[in-house]
Amino acid sequence: MIIDVHGHYTTAPKALEAWRNRQLASIREPAARPHPSELVISDDEIRETIETNQLKQMRERGADLTIFSPRASFMAHHLGDFQVSSAWAAICNELCHRVSLLFPDHFIPAAMLPQSPGVPVETCLPELDRCVRQYGAVAVNLNPDPSGGHWTSPPLTDRHWYPLYERLVEHDVPAMIHVSTSCNPCFHTTGAHYINADTTAFMQLIQGNLFQDFPTLRFVIPHGGGAAPYHWGRYRGLAQELKKPPLAEHLLGNVFFDTCVYHQAGIDLLTRVVPVANILFASEMIGAVRGVDPETGHNYDDTKRFIEASTLLTPAQKEQVYEGNARRVYPRLQTALADKASRTGKGKERGT
Amino acid sequence: MIIDVHGHYTTAPKALEAWRNRQLASIREPAARPHPSELVISDDEIRETIETNQLKQMRERGADLTIFSPRASFMAHHLGDFQVSSAWAAICNELCHRVSLLFPDHFIPAAMLPQSPGVPVETCLPELDRCVRQYGAVAVNLNPDPSGGHWTSPPLTDRHWYPLYERLVEHDVPAMIHVSTSCNPCFHTTGAHYINADTTAFMQLIQGNLFQDFPTLRFVIPHGGGAAPYHWGRYRGLAQELKKPPLAEHLLGNVFFDTCVYHQAGIDLLTRVVPVANILFASEMIGAVRGVDPETGHNYDDTKRFIEASTLLTPAQKEQVYEGNARRVYPRLQTALADKASRTGKGKERGT
Repeated sequence: MIIDVHGHYTTAPKALEAWRNRQLASIREPAARPHPSELVISDDEIRETIETNQLKQMRERGADLTIFSPRASFMAHHLGDFQVSSAWAAICNELCHRVSLLFPDHFIPAAMLPQSPGVPVETCLPELDRCVRQYGAVAVNLNPDPSGGHWTSPPLTDRHWYPLYERLVEHDVPAMIHVSTSCNPCFHTTGAHYINADTTAFMQLIQGNLFQDFPTLRFVIPHGGGAAPYHWGRYRGLAQELKKPPLAEHLLGNVFFDTCVYHQAGIDLLTRVVPVANILFASEMIGAVRGVDPETGHNYDDTKRFIEASTLLTPAQKEQVYEGNARRVYPRLQTALADKASRTGKGKERGT
Repeated sequence: MIIDVHGHYTTAPKALEAWRNRQLASIREPAARPHPSELVISDDEIRETIETNQLKQMRERGADLTIFSPRASFMAHHLGDFQVSSAWAAICNELCHRVSLLFPDHFIPAAMLPQSPGVPVETCLPELDRCVRQYGAVAVNLNPDPSGGHWTSPPLTDRHWYPLYERLVEHDVPAMIHVSTSCNPCFHTTGAHYINADTTAFMQLIQGNLFQDFPTLRFVIPHGGGAAPYHWGRYRGLAQELKKPPLAEHLLGNVFFDTCVYHQAGIDLLTRVVPVANILFASEMIGAVRGVDPETGHNYDDTKRFIEASTLLTPAQKEQVYEGNARRVYPRLQTALADKASRTGKGKERGT
C-alpha cells in the first residue's frame, strides 16, 4: 500500500473561494459576514474535482491513500480575527471530511486549525477535537507563523503551544508543521516561506528540549525537512555546540520528514542522511509545482518515481517509506485501516 | 592555489567588542558615543589572533588565500541608526584591511556595508568606494534584511537596491548575500536566519529579472545556497510556472554558491545539481560550527576534505572550484593576484 501523507484540497469547487472572498470582504463588518450555510457544494461537485485531479493522478502514479487536508496556502491565518479563522477552518475541514466519505479507500482527513495571530492556541482545541472525533482526522497542520511571514509567534518550543501539544498527545495525533500564504513580499509563499518555515522549525526543535516534556508528540516537517537534510552536518554541529544530544537521540524519535523533494538528487540526499524510519512518502500533489520536468518528462511532484529509482533504499526500506512509517507515525490511520480491513476482509480493497 | 571565498574576522581582539559595546550602550546619546580613535589594536594583536586561528587552520588544511570580511553576526545592522552602522563598518573594514596588509599572501579583504533599516542604500556607497579603492576590497557582503529577522526591506530585485548594484557593477565587485544576527526569537542566527536568507534571496532572484538590468552583476549565495540545491527540482519547477527561462539561463550567469556545507552528502548534492562553474570553495572558518564531527574525526567546517573526497568532481573541476571560479567571479582578486605575481616572479609565493 502506498500512502501519501501530504495532500491538500487545492482543487475545491470555486464556490469555496467565492464564499471565502465574501468572508474576507466583510472582515470589518462581522454582521455582514456570510453564514457557512450559504456555501453549498454538492457531492457530485466534490467527486468531480477529486476524480479528475488528485484521484486521477494517484491512479496513474500508483498511490493508494492520501492524508488530505485543506489547502495550505488558503489557510491564511493572518486574515481577520479568530472568528474568521474559525468559520473558515470549520468549512474547509468539513469539505476534506466529505472527500474522505466519498472516497473512503483513497482519502483520510487531516485538519487545519483556526489559528489567529496573538490568540491563545487553546482556542483551536474545540475544532481539533471535532475533527478527530467526528471526522476521523488522523493529523493536523500546525502553522508556526500564523502572521503569514512576520514570525510574531513564539518558537514551537515555547509554552505558548503546550495546550495544543497536550491535546495532540491525548489524541495521539501528529502535527505537520505547515505555514500558509506569505504576506511578506520578501518571501515567495511556496519557494521561500514554506521551505524557511521547515528549516526554522527544525532549528527551534534543536534549540529546545520539547520532547522531554512530550515524549510521544510527533511532528512531520514537510518539503523534505526544508534545508535540514542538505545541511545535516551543520545541524549536527550546532546541536553539539548547544550541548544537546546527537540528533538521533534529541529529535528523531519525534520528528519525521516527508519526501516532497522534486528531483532525484534531493531524494537521494534525504535517504542518505536521514534514517529510513524518519522518512514518509508524500508528494503534495496537486500543489506548488504542477509542471512537467523537461529533464525527465514527468511531473516534478511525481515523487514516487524518485523513490522507485533510488538505489540507496532496499525494497523493504521503500515499503517502510511508503507505508510502514506512516502507520507508525499516524496511529489513527493505522486504526482506521485495521478497522476497514476487518470490516471488508483483510487486504481486500473496496472500489470507490 | 586554494582560495576560500568566505572567511570572517570572528577572532578579532576583545577590544573591538568592548568598543562596540560602548557604542551600543550610547545609542540614545550620540554625544556619549566612543570615538573610533579610542579603539587601539596593535599589529601584534592582530597577528596573534590570525596566526593562532584562521591562518593556523588554513595551513593545517591546505588553503592558501581567504577573502576576509568582518564578522557577519556582529554587523547587526538593526542596532542603532546609520551613524552607528557607519562608524562600526568603518572600523571593522579597516581591521580586515590591516589583516590583509599583515598577511598579504593569505588574506584579501571584502567589505561590510553600513546598512541601516529604512535608510536608502545610497548611504553605503562612500564606504564601498573607500573599501574598494583604499583597501583593495574584492567583494562586499550585502545584507538583504538589515532589520535582523523582521524582513522589512524590499526584495533584492526591487529598485531600492539599484544604486548599490550600479556601483558594484562599476567597481566590478560581487556581493555575497549575507544576513547578520537575528533579533527575532523564531530564527536561530546561524541555524535558521542564515540559511533562510540564502533560500529567500535565491527565490527573489527567480521571481525577478534583475540580471536583465544588470547583466554583469554577480551574487554569491553562501552556505551552499541555503536550501536551493536540495530543492533544485522545486526551483526549476517554480521558475517554469513563473514563465522564467531555465535557471541556467535566468540566473546562473550571475549567481554562485559557496561550499559551506558541512558534510559529504551535502557537498555531493551541490556538485551533482549545480554546474561546476557556479561553485566556489569556502569554509566560513572560524565560524558558526567549530566542533569536530565525531563521525569523521575532523572539523565540520573543514570543507576541503569533502571536495577532496568527491568522486563526482574531476581533478580539473576541483581546481575550478578551488581557484578558477573565484578568479573569474572576483575580477579584482584576479588582478591583485596577477599584480603580485608580476611583482614577485610568476607563481612564486612570498612567505608572511
